[in-house]
Amino acid sequence: MNIVDIILDKRYGRELSEDQIDFFVRGVTDRIIPDYQISALLMAIVLNGMTDRETTALTLKMAASGQVNDLSFVEGVAVDKHSTGGVGDKVTPIVMPLCATFGVQSVKLSGRGLGFTGGTVDKFESIEGFNINVAAGDFPDLIKNTGMVISGQTPDLAPADKILYALRDVTGTVDSIPLIASSIMSKKIAGGAEAIVLDVTCGSGAFMKDKERATELARTMINIGNLAGRKTVALITDMDQPLGRTCGNTLEMMEVFDTLRGKGSDDVVETVCNIAAKMITLAGKNEGMDHEALVEECKKRLSDNSALSKYYELILSQGGHVMDTGIPVYKEMPFEELRITAEEDGYISGIKADTIGHASVLLGAGRLQKTDEIDYGAGLCFYVKVGDKVRKGDVICSLCRGENRKVEDDKIFDIMELVQSAYSYSKEKPEPRKAVIDIIE
Amino acid sequence: MNIVDIILDKRYGRELSEDQIDFFVRGVTDRIIPDYQISALLMAIVLNGMTDRETTALTLKMAASGQVNDLSFVEGVAVDKHSTGGVGDKVTPIVMPLCATFGVQSVKLSGRGLGFTGGTVDKFESIEGFNINVAAGDFPDLIKNTGMVISGQTPDLAPADKILYALRDVTGTVDSIPLIASSIMSKKIAGGAEAIVLDVTCGSGAFMKDKERATELARTMINIGNLAGRKTVALITDMDQPLGRTCGNTLEMMEVFDTLRGKGSDDVVETVCNIAAKMITLAGKNEGMDHEALVEECKKRLSDNSALSKYYELILSQGGHVMDTGIPVYKEMPFEELRITAEEDGYISGIKADTIGHASVLLGAGRLQKTDEIDYGAGLCFYVKVGDKVRKGDVICSLCRGENRKVEDDKIFDIMELVQSAYSYSKEKPEPRKAVIDIIE
Repeated sequence: MNIVDIILDKRYGRELSEDQIDFFVRGVTDRIIPDYQISALLMAIVLNGMTDRETTALTLKMAASGQVNDLSFVEGVAVDKHSTGGVGDKVTPIVMPLCATFGVQSVKLSGRGLGFTGGTVDKFESIEGFNINVAAGDFPDLIKNTGMVISGQTPDLAPADKILYALRDVTGTVDSIPLIASSIMSKKIAGGAEAIVLDVTCGSGAFMKDKERATELARTMINIGNLAGRKTVALITDMDQPLGRTCGNTLEMMEVFDTLRGKGSDDVVETVCNIAAKMITLAGKNEGMDHEALVEECKKRLSDNSALSKYYELILSQGGHVMDTGIPVYKEMPFEELRITAEEDGYISGIKADTIGHASVLLGAGRLQKTDEIDYGAGLCFYVKVGDKVRKGDVICSLCRGENRKVEDDKIFDIMELVQSAYSYSKEKPEPRKAVIDIIE
Repeated sequence: MNIVDIILDKRYGRELSEDQIDFFVRGVTDRIIPDYQISALLMAIVLNGMTDRETTALTLKMAASGQVNDLSFVEGVAVDKHSTGGVGDKVTPIVMPLCATFGVQSVKLSGRGLGFTGGTVDKFESIEGFNINVAAGDFPDLIKNTGMVISGQTPDLAPADKILYALRDVTGTVDSIPLIASSIMSKKIAGGAEAIVLDVTCGSGAFMKDKERATELARTMINIGNLAGRKTVALITDMDQPLGRTCGNTLEMMEVFDTLRGKGSDDVVETVCNIAAKMITLAGKNEGMDHEALVEECKKRLSDNSALSKYYELILSQGGHVMDTGIPVYKEMPFEELRITAEEDGYISGIKADTIGHASVLLGAGRLQKTDEIDYGAGLCFYVKVGDKVRKGDVICSLCRGENRKVEDDKIFDIMELVQSAYSYSKEKPEPRKAVIDIIE
């Protein structure tokens, strides 16, 4: 077997065998196949596609290319969630304690943010003292104590995927459903998940710009999950406007806290409760409730402080600081505020999530390069959402910088202009947006 | 401008601008763009194609990526020929002296053989003393004396093409009409050609397996030539069976000599005279004759020794040895002969040129790797061609090794079997094959 023949097979649109995919993934992992052959094959995959059989084989071989986590210490079914990324996505810090109130134990391995998609690890790190580098050996104890652990330390999970991902990033081969699906699923499987809930975002702030592509990605991942023996459910959620009321690390963790105190925005509550309900069901902890009943029960537990107390347990167990008043201590607070006002009378018809995400990165809330430092206090607050009525001059959004003010003054006006450009207006009231667009299982 | 955007444009099927192609070729030549990005773009080009405008821009940028030969010392129009390669292709050593009898001056820059396609340089080198490494500074003198020069020294012609070709070879991106066409035409243009005759081979022993693909390649190259201001004509020639009666270096040069003495095989004479006629016409030396008349005149000059005397001039001017009897001295003679006999009564219906070419390489007549030494005396002689009637046991072909016998005895039987497998038989007389299938201008 040789790699040129494998490239030629895919180039001419033939299905690759499991042995060929195994040969490729081993060659990638062991750094035997040079990058120029890998990238030629990746481009051929992008343009000629992959069958579900091929995508599943690629996923499983990549999952097996490094360490595979053993989550047998988790009581019941180890369920994991994954979001394909978005702007203002603070679902995980709410879902974990919410699921824990049902006895669902969860080990969450998470990444840092890059580009306009924020990272859960960065968000937790905005809490003073919160230790995100938990060694795998400490997982069982934390799970035993609180039922939850979140860690950014994932050194050897699916190393083949890491190599492929880095190469895809610089060879125009990121946007490919089989490659995106196998990348996500390989990490979930290597992470030890027995069941997976996928939050497939769609819209301007997501990889998948429309419902059709999002559905195709969701179905591809569900097929992989099923062929790999992992129960998998996907939710298609709206990422055409930013999720919730904030974007930025400290700001989002403040919104997480508000949501856990029963003061969440409708879209966040809807998204969180639907995802949690599916996780609880897959974990077998739904206590006989169907999905709708479970969503209602989740909403109740966001209002009656039961999820909040689990959240305190999570913060304290990983070293995070909480004030006597019950409010978490943040490393850096939003310090300065600049207001954006409506340019027209009418209704907000769109808030481009990608533009907002980009502005947020420019403010210092995210990274353009892996080595960039971030400003935890930086970000944006949204006072109106799509469908809201405004009058010219109303404050619709504000920009924040942290005390460190990583962004220089002369850049701030450009950023304000950029944020302004994300908003569009209409005279007619637009159709209300649904936070959860579809559920696919 | 950045290379990832260029890759993405081609990936999504958009036409690249001249500036983008310029940026790419410069980045390749200067070794700034890493191989993995080049190969991703090559695969995107292979699968999404290129317009004539793009292919022409790529050709001209590659031609300009290194030295461009100045052939102003050539009297009249500098015309060049190029063959897309084949088995037993000994056209150049016959065409050059033949054209010289019409006063057509030709500077021929040629390569060595690799794989089953032989190289003109290797063939000339089978003549004792023949110096193939002529410095460009010596071209004008040689042209003045004999009207001909052949050289293998082409260090800096189209270096971008060299880099791309090496990468295509190992990334499954060789077979692509825009890439093949721009590679060939860039070298011709950098070589200084003002007019170009293309011998586009088709069949089992050629890159292009059928007439349709060969015609497409021919038309693409003609379009490039026209857009680049070079008069270009293409002949589609048969390479489904080997050309002529021999394959191998000394053997082919012996056949060249026979052809120049008026004893050529029909297919070689037909091919040579059609190509020469087009070259003579493009050079403006046709003396009022139309193509058909010119072909007849060429045949005459192969029979009346006028082309032969020009051949002697060429050999002697580049240091080659000729015996007093008028026969060139070869470095190594075919030494040992092994006969292949017909397996059936009937007609020869096919002689797979690629299989024959492969056998010839195994015999030592060609190279599998650039550094392989070749056995000038090795090769094959064909006693029958497609359409000939045979009886079981008739000798149809013989295998030769040189005195050095680069191939070990225990391999020779495998090679004989391989050669045998190239032949197919039929009870019915097959349609006669035409050596020149089409002429496109």
